[in-house]
Amino acid sequence: MRFPSFAALRAACLDLPAGDAAAAVTAADRDAKLTKPPGSLGRLEELAVWLARWQARNPPRLERIEVLVFAGNHGVVAQGVSAFPAEVTGQMVANFAAGGAAINQLAAVAGADLRVVPLDLDRPTADFTEAPAMDEDAFLRAVATGYDTVPADADLICLGEMGIGNTTAAAAIAAALFGGGGARWAGRGTGVDDHGLARKRAAIDGALAHHAAVLGDPLLIAAALGGRELAAMLGAALATRLQHIPVLIDGFVCTAALAPLARLRNDGLAHAVAAHVSAEAAHRALLDELGLKPLIDLGMRLGEASGAAVAALILRAAVACHTGMATFTEAGVSDKV
Amino acid sequence: MRFPSFAALRAACLDLPAGDAAAAVTAADRDAKLTKPPGSLGRLEELAVWLARWQARNPPRLERIEVLVFAGNHGVVAQGVSAFPAEVTGQMVANFAAGGAAINQLAAVAGADLRVVPLDLDRPTADFTEAPAMDEDAFLRAVATGYDTVPADADLICLGEMGIGNTTAAAAIAAALFGGGGARWAGRGTGVDDHGLARKRAAIDGALAHHAAVLGDPLLIAAALGGRELAAMLGAALATRLQHIPVLIDGFVCTAALAPLARLRNDGLAHAVAAHVSAEAAHRALLDELGLKPLIDLGMRLGEASGAAVAALILRAAVACHTGMATFTEAGVSDKV
Repeated sequence: MRFPSFAALRAACLDLPAGDAAAAVTAADRDAKLTKPPGSLGRLEELAVWLARWQARNPPRLERIEVLVFAGNHGVVAQGVSAFPAEVTGQMVANFAAGGAAINQLAAVAGADLRVVPLDLDRPTADFTEAPAMDEDAFLRAVATGYDTVPADADLICLGEMGIGNTTAAAAIAAALFGGGGARWAGRGTGVDDHGLARKRAAIDGALAHHAAVLGDPLLIAAALGGRELAAMLGAALATRLQHIPVLIDGFVCTAALAPLARLRNDGLAHAVAAHVSAEAAHRALLDELGLKPLIDLGMRLGEASGAAVAALILRAAVACHTGMATFTEAGVSDKV
Repeated sequence: MRFPSFAALRAACLDLPAGDAAAAVTAADRDAKLTKPPGSLGRLEELAVWLARWQARNPPRLERIEVLVFAGNHGVVAQGVSAFPAEVTGQMVANFAAGGAAINQLAAVAGADLRVVPLDLDRPTADFTEAPAMDEDAFLRAVATGYDTVPADADLICLGEMGIGNTTAAAAIAAALFGGGGARWAGRGTGVDDHGLARKRAAIDGALAHHAAVLGDPLLIAAALGGRELAAMLGAALATRLQHIPVLIDGFVCTAALAPLARLRNDGLAHAVAAHVSAEAAHRALLDELGLKPLIDLGMRLGEASGAAVAALILRAAVACHTGMATFTEAGVSDKV
């Protein structure tokens, strides 16, 4: 789906379908009859109902889980903001293809398909301390790539990314959307040292000043301060909403990439769950700003949809209980005294 | 393994093997070479090293995961401490056998075998507000059952329980070991109301007064205030340590059942990881007392090893990354700048 303009994309982001309340009620009714004290499976119960609502299907199912990893390169690495050189983005894409990365192993454990989509790696976005990272055309092309990557028959999408320098872009977007500047949002990413962290903060603050004119518009922010892989994740998240596919959000970069959808419309990410809270310090603050409660907190900070793939295991547990457990009547178990 | 006396069991609990430091070092060395920033898989990295240490094997493996659920009945239910009647214990054991409980579904998702061991369900322990729950012989028989249930070729054991009334026993043990009385340790269990909660607190405080003479001895506490399924979990945890099998601890009852091992010897639970923190309020306090950091926090409070089975998925993720990922050299990925 190629949106012809920022305005057309904005209109699509504002015209979203609600979840299926009837499917959610049916799922909650079944949950109440299962052989366990009410509420005793905690978030597993909520997740089953949430899946039913956003799949618009009861019972929910997880036959096809798709992990989508988008990769991009960033002009802002010229500012010395990353611990790794930019060529690592392409090297890691090759590692994904060869099956050697963390996400290859984690997708396999989750019983998920993995698709990796590199976006013009040999043509980094502009250094956003000096110019918009992407113009309207480049941004909308990346959004379209993400949108079109979503398979219509998926039951769940795990979104993630790879891109040396992209925690700087994510921090810049978060700062633009929620205020606070580089001091609040810049973290160590893949492991930058103190000098690199100072350069990262300065790059973010410089970019906020340079792009002051667009800071009131979430989509213009995403184009000016983001990156192709972030724009693709936004497009994919929009496509899933329109196709009744729930989403697991990975870490800080993925959350920042999708945040404009929540700024455009309060329930813009209602079909998405935060898979985890990253060790990247600003992620918790960003989740708090968005009202998202992460499923797991294991100190991960890799990206690549790694947290989302681990959290997909928890969704599998939720669906298995919801669909496989006996009711009190079926099992002949006494209800409460 | 039938220990002939409290003294013989105590001696075994004090004479534990250490982990395999060499296996742990080899695992940590491999981890440092994998295609990710150092530390970026967070606790997944620690878990792989922990498994290598306590399996005494590198690389660690999870071919055989065994979920062991012990079930028992409790005389203290006569005090009106539970929301469900005592016959539910046996009914749920039948539900486990029929495949209808949460743990059946969760064990299947985790690729684990499930074994359920009912212990004299038609002969509840004594009401410990009036007498020791078990005498020495009954306690040691339950410990032996748990010990002998552990398969020597398991790669991981998930421990759990079922027993109407057993959060009262767990709270009594926790109070006896760590102080604070019923007000600190009694929670709502399967969903007891305010009056039931008051009775539960009173039962615990009454039991602490009645058994004041044994409160200095962790094993006498386990016999006087515990239950057969708790004693069996203690026996199983001891067996795993002696056979180099790591353990996932389930919820509040399981943690309380194993706590005497940590009171007898500081590193008595070093081969065990807390799978989750339960919504049963006292669980977090008990984990804190034991210095255990739970893997997940999903508001679960079911028992049945349900939290342990979900956490086993995270161990599968950890092992998959550790064993399957490429090194920087293998993948031709540049190391840090």
